[in-house]
Amino acid sequence: MKIQTKKERFKEPLRLESGRILEEYELIYETYGELNEDKSNVIVVCHPLSLSHHAAGRYADEAKAGWWNNLIGDGKAVDTTKYFVICSNTLGSSYGSTNPLSIDPSTKKEYRLKFPVLAISDVVKAQMKLYDRLGIKKAKAIIGGSMGGMQALCYSIEFPDFAEQVFALATTAYTRPWAISFNKIGMEAIRHDPIFKNGNYSKDDIQALGLPGLAIGRMAGLICYLSPNLFNRKFGRDYASTDGLYELFGRFEIEKYLEYNAYNFPKVFDPLSYLYTCKMMNIFDSGRNEDTLENSFAKVKSKLHLISFSDDMTFFPEEMEEIKDIMIKIGKGEQVTYKMVESQSGHDSFLVEVEKFEDYIINLLEGKK
Amino acid sequence: MKIQTKKERFKEPLRLESGRILEEYELIYETYGELNEDKSNVIVVCHPLSLSHHAAGRYADEAKAGWWNNLIGDGKAVDTTKYFVICSNTLGSSYGSTNPLSIDPSTKKEYRLKFPVLAISDVVKAQMKLYDRLGIKKAKAIIGGSMGGMQALCYSIEFPDFAEQVFALATTAYTRPWAISFNKIGMEAIRHDPIFKNGNYSKDDIQALGLPGLAIGRMAGLICYLSPNLFNRKFGRDYASTDGLYELFGRFEIEKYLEYNAYNFPKVFDPLSYLYTCKMMNIFDSGRNEDTLENSFAKVKSKLHLISFSDDMTFFPEEMEEIKDIMIKIGKGEQVTYKMVESQSGHDSFLVEVEKFEDYIINLLEGKK
Repeated sequence: MKIQTKKERFKEPLRLESGRILEEYELIYETYGELNEDKSNVIVVCHPLSLSHHAAGRYADEAKAGWWNNLIGDGKAVDTTKYFVICSNTLGSSYGSTNPLSIDPSTKKEYRLKFPVLAISDVVKAQMKLYDRLGIKKAKAIIGGSMGGMQALCYSIEFPDFAEQVFALATTAYTRPWAISFNKIGMEAIRHDPIFKNGNYSKDDIQALGLPGLAIGRMAGLICYLSPNLFNRKFGRDYASTDGLYELFGRFEIEKYLEYNAYNFPKVFDPLSYLYTCKMMNIFDSGRNEDTLENSFAKVKSKLHLISFSDDMTFFPEEMEEIKDIMIKIGKGEQVTYKMVESQSGHDSFLVEVEKFEDYIINLLEGKK
Repeated sequence: MKIQTKKERFKEPLRLESGRILEEYELIYETYGELNEDKSNVIVVCHPLSLSHHAAGRYADEAKAGWWNNLIGDGKAVDTTKYFVICSNTLGSSYGSTNPLSIDPSTKKEYRLKFPVLAISDVVKAQMKLYDRLGIKKAKAIIGGSMGGMQALCYSIEFPDFAEQVFALATTAYTRPWAISFNKIGMEAIRHDPIFKNGNYSKDDIQALGLPGLAIGRMAGLICYLSPNLFNRKFGRDYASTDGLYELFGRFEIEKYLEYNAYNFPKVFDPLSYLYTCKMMNIFDSGRNEDTLENSFAKVKSKLHLISFSDDMTFFPEEMEEIKDIMIKIGKGEQVTYKMVESQSGHDSFLVEVEKFEDYIINLLEGKK
């Protein structure tokens, strides 16, 4: 599989949903496979909150392959011998696209908290500029889970002529207060962390000291991305063999797991990017521009394929069923499919239980239902 | 209804589950109604994590009555014209019983982080000393929800001759990793809060500055004590009218609710008490002393009445069903009743949806099934 990582700089201002303007911006993106001559074999992949444009393949120095490597590759469900796959790092994220630590051209300093709040629609609009520059007018499909699923839904509504098929996994038409609450923990913990210094933190400090506030936010995320049953199965009540049961800070294995993953997170993800990306997810609402969800989904021309996961504790299956019901209600039942996967890994099932829905995706990509 | 608040001091050492010893201790408690002549009308009420011995009635200067005032009172389900009700503040809690800010007799200083880790069994054992001092040998019933339900279960196993009936609501036989994870957020946030000063905080600082770490822990608690449906119904996607949608720190109403409740919490609850009480809940395991749950529940002589709530996100109904199944498996099916209440308020349903189970309790207290 041919992998390329590239960056494009856009000098044309991007008018944001908020009314503010991003004077210029960069998008870093990765591609897998080869673009065919008539540019008709494109599949767009959209990443979730904490992940990057590195969706598949493995670089020489990498311990782990890209985050959807089980789905994307030669001979896999998203077959890179057939398709040319593009995954862009979202605006605001901390993996190389323009974000709060980028230089504000009007001040020549990092934006920090002066960075504008972005919406999912802004991320998608910027990515459309990228495809345009690459001469890509149409996509065979768009696929995304969680925040990537929000992008997929947004493409289907805002750019209805772009993709033939849109796959939205483990996502929602609008973020509900349950998911907002988990993000709130992180947002508050970051704001109150003295190392954060109201956004004026030193990046070296964070590499040296970590950022407990962001780690605590990550813990809240890990809880709602997994599930009670998974925790029971994986950790049960196992206790750290090094710790005393009656030590106040002695730890169950689940606590060690949360600590390990959470305290590493600030080394790879920036706290301002975390704040802006949480905010972007919180304000996501497919119905905003058209007043109602019905009006928004009435614009959809693609086939819309919805996949939910039975034990998703972030975006519950009912939230995806609601989209299916709306499509049926507005007379677009022929354009929508819905599958609930019986999962055991919570929200993250879309990343780790690919074997349960890959055939479904293959059949749909091949035009079977 | 006659209400009395009293404190008892115990000079006899309490040998703790951990092997450590609490040299002396105090318990503050409240009683409602009148103890009858043969002391046969006692009902013990056990409080959850963040509440106190003030379970019912309203003092002259109080805006709100005690936390289970809808259940306990003259003519109510726990009828104080018939019963003499006792509710003790648990050891370790911050409402007046011995806790980490009490004076350690061996050093004449506050314990702080030298306070021993307590188990639910220690709390219950100390309360038994209180009943003994009051000349109470038997209880008509014990009733508790959440951490109070853990105490109720512990009484039924450790002191099987004490109560005729035990009511455990919204609780579990052993704390699972899901609930431990929510507590973990608070424990980590408190530890990393610079105002906490590794347990050597100034109480005046906390009154003046709050303690964001404890507030963030409280937020995590509030999320798992409520439920996604309740959040949808109560807050939906309403946005604070004072805040901008595209302001990074602009807030949805759910966020304002969490902030309001969380940031007030450190004014009424001590962070060390919070840490010790979370730890006590985390290590709760009905099977510990007897190796298996079956052996533990084999000791039960009381009628055991289990009430779960359909949308409880802290202790899921399956956890209480498991206790019922164990009782049946060990041949004690006649001693157990189980009711799942169709609730809409999450874990906190045991506090706020009393009308859905009060008749059930009344009938059982009167010996009907």
